[in-house]
Amino acid sequence: MKKLSDLQSIIEEAITKLDIPQHPIELYEPVKYILSLGGKRMRPALLLMACDLFGGDVDAALSPALAIEVFHNFTLVHDDIMDNAPLRRGKATVHERWGQNAGILSGDVMLVLAYQLMMKKVEDRLLRTVLGVFSTTAVGVCEGQQLDMDFEKRQTVGIDEYLDMIRLKTSVLLGGALKIGALVGGANLADAELLYSFGEHLGIAFQLQDDILDVYGDPDKFGKQVGGDIMSNKKTYLLLKALELADHVQENELKDWLNRKDFDAAEKVYAVTSIYNHLNIRAYAGHEMNSHAEKAFIALEKISLPEDKKHYLRNFADGLLVREH
Amino acid sequence: MKKLSDLQSIIEEAITKLDIPQHPIELYEPVKYILSLGGKRMRPALLLMACDLFGGDVDAALSPALAIEVFHNFTLVHDDIMDNAPLRRGKATVHERWGQNAGILSGDVMLVLAYQLMMKKVEDRLLRTVLGVFSTTAVGVCEGQQLDMDFEKRQTVGIDEYLDMIRLKTSVLLGGALKIGALVGGANLADAELLYSFGEHLGIAFQLQDDILDVYGDPDKFGKQVGGDIMSNKKTYLLLKALELADHVQENELKDWLNRKDFDAAEKVYAVTSIYNHLNIRAYAGHEMNSHAEKAFIALEKISLPEDKKHYLRNFADGLLVREH
Repeated sequence: MKKLSDLQSIIEEAITKLDIPQHPIELYEPVKYILSLGGKRMRPALLLMACDLFGGDVDAALSPALAIEVFHNFTLVHDDIMDNAPLRRGKATVHERWGQNAGILSGDVMLVLAYQLMMKKVEDRLLRTVLGVFSTTAVGVCEGQQLDMDFEKRQTVGIDEYLDMIRLKTSVLLGGALKIGALVGGANLADAELLYSFGEHLGIAFQLQDDILDVYGDPDKFGKQVGGDIMSNKKTYLLLKALELADHVQENELKDWLNRKDFDAAEKVYAVTSIYNHLNIRAYAGHEMNSHAEKAFIALEKISLPEDKKHYLRNFADGLLVREH
Repeated sequence: MKKLSDLQSIIEEAITKLDIPQHPIELYEPVKYILSLGGKRMRPALLLMACDLFGGDVDAALSPALAIEVFHNFTLVHDDIMDNAPLRRGKATVHERWGQNAGILSGDVMLVLAYQLMMKKVEDRLLRTVLGVFSTTAVGVCEGQQLDMDFEKRQTVGIDEYLDMIRLKTSVLLGGALKIGALVGGANLADAELLYSFGEHLGIAFQLQDDILDVYGDPDKFGKQVGGDIMSNKKTYLLLKALELADHVQENELKDWLNRKDFDAAEKVYAVTSIYNHLNIRAYAGHEMNSHAEKAFIALEKISLPEDKKHYLRNFADGLLVREH
């Protein structure tokens, strides 16, 4: 088995060699730019990993892996427009640098380039299946982004709706990458779908962990500012669960904080966290996270792979998640 | 041979039966809306026509034809955002009605839906070829839109650049629709490519005719306001050719009209048209249009089709173009 970090390096290297057209420069310069901003290249690396797990040729999976990365970057370019984000990975976003129209159109062409890459090296007998998985994944990601935007405007969002949103917005692409890699690597459809399920639940668990760490993480270890979700009123699992469980007094206090325009950030984080603590929200979130991690591991055990490969996958999952007790 | 108007009706009917998901409603409502606004359904009807020409089953080509129409509408939704257009076919544009973010994301999902429809009924042996043609077409359309936007900002645009832009922005999709229809209908690749060439050159000729009619058309017959391109400083073939051929005095007069913020519309149209007349611009444009029509007919003659089918195609082309003498 190849190390994940090696697979990430393979992707990083291949991105620099990607054959992006030169002309019109205004269309393709933003494509090169966003792809050059780096990132962990996790999704394409997972595709290669899945291929490798089933004994496939990682080189043959490189083009579909690049397709996944180009697709992911297409979503970043369009999401950044929709979210009005000025920065991406510490650099100016595409629309900030080249204008909104360039962002829209360069994103569009990236989606087509992703399909072209996805088709390039895939065997004829797999083409329909692989493109079908890719399209379903792409539709899911669009639906997830739509739900995310809708939720921002809504007063109340159910926990089930939230879980479905994070599944669509982030997990189906992880699952899709693993499934496509497995298929290209020679897995049968049943195993490929189990690996999809593994990735999907792991992704949900990872997102829930992110929600928890945003409030309870060690400021030295957590990459983002602790309390950032509370400051920005982000409808995370924690906030939604708190709104669900709060008594009348707690609900009013929470809503008061949500509605305040002027506040001391530290004071708000402390007050909202105190309500979370009273309601035992961390435990609920941890429980939900663990339940998805469990589902991921159950799917993993069912895959027809030798024990050493399963061990590799278990280690990978354990590295992503710090289980909550 | 089926009549083009019948094929257009088949598409119109199939659009109403298209299976668009219900949820999230904010994502799919704009998709249903833009598809319901009508239009001539020319591109998908051409796909069916090409299939029919080669003796294929029109029903089997319906899904790819719908893919072309969904793709075309995706470009309309995104172009309308980029052009800041409030109206499309007399109704509010998607971004005007639901906001810009809805326009971006609904457009994105339409591009994926187009790929799903394109794959749906196509035989395995044709899948790679058909999707390859579709992707190349889609990339071309994005490049054409980019060039069109670039040209608006530029002072000078060469005639060759302009012809390449209209080829990409409008003609490759006509060519692509015909090529895919031919392939699905059983044509060999050589004939499919000849039909592509027919469509591409016919599209360029048609666009040039539109440029001419905008200035010289019969106000009672031309669908748009005569002189509209002159009023809005649109860089048409006529304007670019005039700028190329103008002497110093004419060039100054043209540029003066282009730069004026306040003007009497009729006076501007009259003055610019007079310069066109002095420079014989209509003849140049007519010559360019005829040369592309010729190329279309030359491609047509090379196609291995019986005379009655070629006659049908010739009639179709003659119906679109009023040749300039």
